[in-house]
Amino acid sequence: MIKLEGLRIAGLYLFLKERESELDEKMCELGEEIEAYLYERLSIEEMEELRRLYEDSDADLGSKI
Amino acid sequence: MIKLEGLRIAGLYLFLKERESELDEKMCELGEEIEAYLYERLSIEEMEELRRLYEDSDADLGSKI
Repeated sequence: MIKLEGLRIAGLYLFLKERESELDEKMCELGEEIEAYLYERLSIEEMEELRRLYEDSDADLGSKI
Repeated sequence: MIKLEGLRIAGLYLFLKERESELDEKMCELGEEIEAYLYERLSIEEMEELRRLYEDSDADLGSKI
């Protein structure tokens, strides 16, 4: 088992989401689970600017997820 | 925290590995950790044909990782 935490979760979500058309069924399910996980922890506004927050080390995104 | 298990680990590894040039630093590290994880559990031969084993449900790859 591999555990994903903090910014890695956001990074992986963005990577998968931006390549949605290339995902097989299992990776699509994984992307959906990560999305649900993030929506439980972040606001809609934060989700909408997730790429910016992920790349901005001052945004402290990692501590919220 | 999100837990990855079984075939998902292989699927994610293949997805990242096949897009290596597109990975940022965090995703690159994740790919390397998953690679080390898989090399601990699979033979070199299995790693070399990982895509085929992943797609062949009879190969029972999920139970090994």
